[in-house]
Amino acid sequence: MVAEEIDRNPSFVLRAVKDVAFEDRPIPKLRDQYDVRVQIEQTGICGSDVHYWQRGRIGDFVLTSPIVLGHESSGTVVETGSAVKNVKVGDRVAIEPGVPCRHCDHCRSGAYNLCADTIFAATPPWDGTLSKYYIVASDYVYPIPDHMSMEEGALVEPTAVGVQITKVADLRAGQTVLVMGCGPIGVMCQAIAKAYGAKKVIGVDIVQSRLDFAKTFGADEVFLPPKPEQGVDPVEHSEKVAEQIKKQFGLGEGADVVLECTGAEPVIQMGVFAARKGGTYVQAGMGKENVVFPITTACIRALTIKGSIRYTTGCYPQAVELVASGKIGVKRLITNRFEFEKAEDAFELVKASKPDVFKVMIAGVQS
Amino acid sequence: MVAEEIDRNPSFVLRAVKDVAFEDRPIPKLRDQYDVRVQIEQTGICGSDVHYWQRGRIGDFVLTSPIVLGHESSGTVVETGSAVKNVKVGDRVAIEPGVPCRHCDHCRSGAYNLCADTIFAATPPWDGTLSKYYIVASDYVYPIPDHMSMEEGALVEPTAVGVQITKVADLRAGQTVLVMGCGPIGVMCQAIAKAYGAKKVIGVDIVQSRLDFAKTFGADEVFLPPKPEQGVDPVEHSEKVAEQIKKQFGLGEGADVVLECTGAEPVIQMGVFAARKGGTYVQAGMGKENVVFPITTACIRALTIKGSIRYTTGCYPQAVELVASGKIGVKRLITNRFEFEKAEDAFELVKASKPDVFKVMIAGVQS
Amino acid sequence: MVAEEIDRNPSFVLRAVKDVAFEDRPIPKLRDQYDVRVQIEQTGICGSDVHYWQRGRIGDFVLTSPIVLGHESSGTVVETGSAVKNVKVGDRVAIEPGVPCRHCDHCRSGAYNLCADTIFAATPPWDGTLSKYYIVASDYVYPIPDHMSMEEGALVEPTAVGVQITKVADLRAGQTVLVMGCGPIGVMCQAIAKAYGAKKVIGVDIVQSRLDFAKTFGADEVFLPPKPEQGVDPVEHSEKVAEQIKKQFGLGEGADVVLECTGAEPVIQMGVFAARKGGTYVQAGMGKENVVFPITTACIRALTIKGSIRYTTGCYPQAVELVASGKIGVKRLITNRFEFEKAEDAFELVKASKPDVFKVMIAGVQS
Amino acid sequence: MVAEEIDRNPSFVLRAVKDVAFEDRPIPKLRDQYDVRVQIEQTGICGSDVHYWQRGRIGDFVLTSPIVLGHESSGTVVETGSAVKNVKVGDRVAIEPGVPCRHCDHCRSGAYNLCADTIFAATPPWDGTLSKYYIVASDYVYPIPDHMSMEEGALVEPTAVGVQITKVADLRAGQTVLVMGCGPIGVMCQAIAKAYGAKKVIGVDIVQSRLDFAKTFGADEVFLPPKPEQGVDPVEHSEKVAEQIKKQFGLGEGADVVLECTGAEPVIQMGVFAARKGGTYVQAGMGKENVVFPITTACIRALTIKGSIRYTTGCYPQAVELVASGKIGVKRLITNRFEFEKAEDAFELVKASKPDVFKVMIAGVQS
Repeated sequence: MVAEEIDRNPSFVLRAVKDVAFEDRPIPKLRDQYDVRVQIEQTGICGSDVHYWQRGRIGDFVLTSPIVLGHESSGTVVETGSAVKNVKVGDRVAIEPGVPCRHCDHCRSGAYNLCADTIFAATPPWDGTLSKYYIVASDYVYPIPDHMSMEEGALVEPTAVGVQITKVADLRAGQTVLVMGCGPIGVMCQAIAKAYGAKKVIGVDIVQSRLDFAKTFGADEVFLPPKPEQGVDPVEHSEKVAEQIKKQFGLGEGADVVLECTGAEPVIQMGVFAARKGGTYVQAGMGKENVVFPITTACIRALTIKGSIRYTTGCYPQAVELVASGKIGVKRLITNRFEFEKAEDAFELVKASKPDVFKVMIAGVQS
Repeated sequence: MVAEEIDRNPSFVLRAVKDVAFEDRPIPKLRDQYDVRVQIEQTGICGSDVHYWQRGRIGDFVLTSPIVLGHESSGTVVETGSAVKNVKVGDRVAIEPGVPCRHCDHCRSGAYNLCADTIFAATPPWDGTLSKYYIVASDYVYPIPDHMSMEEGALVEPTAVGVQITKVADLRAGQTVLVMGCGPIGVMCQAIAKAYGAKKVIGVDIVQSRLDFAKTFGADEVFLPPKPEQGVDPVEHSEKVAEQIKKQFGLGEGADVVLECTGAEPVIQMGVFAARKGGTYVQAGMGKENVVFPITTACIRALTIKGSIRYTTGCYPQAVELVASGKIGVKRLITNRFEFEKAEDAFELVKASKPDVFKVMIAGVQS
Repeated sequence: MVAEEIDRNPSFVLRAVKDVAFEDRPIPKLRDQYDVRVQIEQTGICGSDVHYWQRGRIGDFVLTSPIVLGHESSGTVVETGSAVKNVKVGDRVAIEPGVPCRHCDHCRSGAYNLCADTIFAATPPWDGTLSKYYIVASDYVYPIPDHMSMEEGALVEPTAVGVQITKVADLRAGQTVLVMGCGPIGVMCQAIAKAYGAKKVIGVDIVQSRLDFAKTFGADEVFLPPKPEQGVDPVEHSEKVAEQIKKQFGLGEGADVVLECTGAEPVIQMGVFAARKGGTYVQAGMGKENVVFPITTACIRALTIKGSIRYTTGCYPQAVELVASGKIGVKRLITNRFEFEKAEDAFELVKASKPDVFKVMIAGVQS
Repeated sequence: MVAEEIDRNPSFVLRAVKDVAFEDRPIPKLRDQYDVRVQIEQTGICGSDVHYWQRGRIGDFVLTSPIVLGHESSGTVVETGSAVKNVKVGDRVAIEPGVPCRHCDHCRSGAYNLCADTIFAATPPWDGTLSKYYIVASDYVYPIPDHMSMEEGALVEPTAVGVQITKVADLRAGQTVLVMGCGPIGVMCQAIAKAYGAKKVIGVDIVQSRLDFAKTFGADEVFLPPKPEQGVDPVEHSEKVAEQIKKQFGLGEGADVVLECTGAEPVIQMGVFAARKGGTYVQAGMGKENVVFPITTACIRALTIKGSIRYTTGCYPQAVELVASGKIGVKRLITNRFEFEKAEDAFELVKASKPDVFKVMIAGVQS
């Protein structure tokens, strides 16, 4: 019956740590004239989703009440507020999952990724996108062309993360780019760097199969760091590995740009040691809060070290362009697909961290 | 007799670790048409001079043969090469102590402070300025006005170090600036930030007398960090101190710019934690090679962390201007003065690290 | 009677070109939870106000229905929306007169001065501030300290214009700054450049009394350009004058930064010719739409030429700081004061363009 | 006989305006330990060469004594100074034709393209490269890989001009780029923008055959501006054409980046009008000294307008990379080839400006 269908908004909810369930929530209403309602079609699972599920917190964000999971989504616009101009009902869109306050100094100066009052999908206390419907400000949805699939639309999110990282790095054509990590964000950065005219892109990872994939996706060269010998000081080992990378790939004084996408302590050290004098290092991976860090090297070599977080204006349109033009073949990242009703299985699979599981997708609710 | 005088070039030489002596060296000759010969008038002692004396190495620079000490000097031009246009015999000048190769990519792109082939005074194997005469490329000496003393001319060097630090920090008028350390470079940075229109400058040090001086020299506010309580995690302590600084001085999310001039591990941590989201942190102090570093904070807060080393084009002219205009009262930094013949006593005094010894000057050879 | 008073919102209205009148308008209501209502206390008159009055248009902005005039105002907060956090009833504030849409790419990337949907006071079709009450978004009012007068609060607006100009110029301490024009914005730029540590600030104007004032306000040096001789090509004259400026003030190749605040064709030309190779020229003055411009000089000398318009995030807080700290003595700009009821006389006075009339202020409605 | 051969250095000399001749000059000697002697293999003819031949001056550079012509050259290193490390005898190299003084502030700060004392090939009074041998500083020759031809090596020069233009423009991946002009430099800029990940590259020219070529070389779209109708104001015409470009190619507010490579007055105007608010316009073409320029538009739209001249550090290596990697197919630019002895015919052909003559090459002296 129609009435029943209208009232249904099935959602995949994290009720408490390690406790997920499907709930039928009320269909959400537009909050103001700029909002749109999107029917979710595809959602990718990200490490942070699993992290909240298993541990209930990331940094200052703590799960204290149930939230819907999911934040890498695409869908179809089904309702628009009266002031919406950029999309109309029926448009297929990628959804940027964080909408900032628009009033603080960060928002007003273009750094809305730093806004403390951002409503970010699936970050407590905010609901995510693993529902039938999701409400979002219209300027945070981006139309995708007909030839892009909804899966590709959902993968605009990790692409946009990579776009922001390369933007923070001020990455230029002709540079040598060393990317630490060949997970989804790492290979994305490699492919973006290549699309931007990098001279040489090198991917580093400790899993050979990831290196193999990276080499087919964007990296010119890949490198598997040797394990430290017994009794060697860990930082000295990292420095030695960095020297090996420089030598093996003809980087001279080092890489122009290093993009760190693992958050692992020894890899961070390798990255810093592998940057050339006056070079740029971007921290995008997150692991231990504090690590042993070669600060004197950073000082003497006049490095620029920057943190990258979320996205800023222009990242989503550029990510859509990279996917739509075929420059980044995001579809190849997908290894597993699940129906909405099997969302928990999808999460279990990601949790298991198997080397052959790369990107796991969950389809939208079939009405 | 004249001939004898002409032949004399008394020099204060570091022969080996902890082994200094006065030597009569030959008067150096111009190497090419761009060189000038300067008769040294005043030289300040810097921590690195003492470091070579006591330990024989800093990083990759190792004392393997005798070198003349000293690199913060002023003097009078006594001979000029045929192509020299910017100065003439008799000009009183400040000497920039490092002359780069001019041919490498760093030199060609304006980052000559990173040139590996720089001839840097008193850095092995290069002789320093504690001689009667010193040969240097003419574009690395800068005329000082009549009303500036030779002592002030020598102190252009640490002023230029501060100018470079604020340049690396991209310091702007209206910013809040937190300077870690109130030694010579720290107070210099504070005074420069103030002269550049900083909104608020805060100096941090663990010695109360240095804080007292800082407050009269450039800092608007000063702060003495409390010692960590028994059993508290050191990094947590650093974070707590940073929060205290933010609160006490009304910095909100943190300082726009943090200039680290100590190199001390806990102070580095405090500095990083005290920077605002999107803020800038410059590492200028050097201590331990590697430190425990809040890398996740740097990432999440999208900090820009940069290393500052030596000087670049424009630093010396700007430093001369700051001193000549009276904006930086460098003379107040001098606490002790020695004749050339008492150079070793001067070094011993600096080595002793007494709180009331700030800047120690050595006069030139009296002919 | 109270009710009557509450209903009154006297306003100074531009009904059509050259047709102004006082009207009693309804007291405006907050449009959303972020708005505040300000009781206007002081308003400065700007050239653009007079321009709309006399000609009814500036560029694409055309007067088609009546608007209240005025946009340089200070006042007291008398009502706040439920979400307002930065100010409370009773706060004395400076008002930024343009509130952007917050949704377009310009707004989202920090360039809200370029937002096409900005509601800008006294720019058709938007009402200005010459009413008893004005409604504005709370993040576009800025508290001023007790020791700042309401007149100074109103003059934060032209100060903020100058702050934006120097920001666009990327002005740094130690630079030589040539400011074309010694009107209110010109002298503001001169004083700001000086407060930011400029090495030398030179003001240019064709009115001697303005030069005299400029020299007491911020300029180190002033210059009155000679008139062109009969038959001399105008551009050649401009170039000759530029050479004279360089020589007279020891600028060598030219000024590091040129700030053009007149919009006059020959002065624009002089400014471009007077910039050093690799220097920066900012166009802030507006006059003729198109001018004869030395484009080959701009090319060969690798100039950076930028336009400055309105203000961006940070300009108002910095302008308040400059006034509150006494660095910019804006009060000295005021030459004439009028009661609200005499607003038309004030406009007539500004229209007359007498050399001794600099800044004219109109007081708020006395309830 | 060997001795005779050694003594020969045949050169193509511009003796006076419109007066060229072949001369046997002495073989030039290395001036210092950093120099190399190159045997020239290929030289492209540039408009400036023809300009000196026909008119004897460009700007401040005036022909007062004979000079060898030519400055776009490749060759083989035949002699190296004792300090040369980057090349050895037998290396095939592209030659950067201007070697700066290395001592002025422009050189020291990385802007050596602005050095007033640059020795620039075929710019009076300096000899060019159309000799058998040419002496140049070793850091201004760049090895080319074996698979690059000498013709391609010579065409590194115009590629490097394009690299500098895009560098000055701060061109980024994902931008819309409008290039005014489809001559050698224009199409180079188009191809480089595309290689750097531009979203859309549009080429503009008044010659259809050049547009046709541009579309096969780098441009996504091309545009032939309509001629102005009788009686229409020229600037209004330019603005109208700019609006047409924006509309036809879906540029919205305008192009992110405009690269002007013609120097023609109406085209300059079109370019400025076609840039988006906050966009960047680079002047690289040179024509009339002064043009009617829409300065108010530049101001209101907050444009950044920059001049590009010559090259800076990194341009040549990046240009070699672009050619060697096949990203820029420079060989396709060559339409005509001449033996050294026919150099005058080559110059006559370029002078004739036929639409089907694009790049004309002159081979080196056959020994």
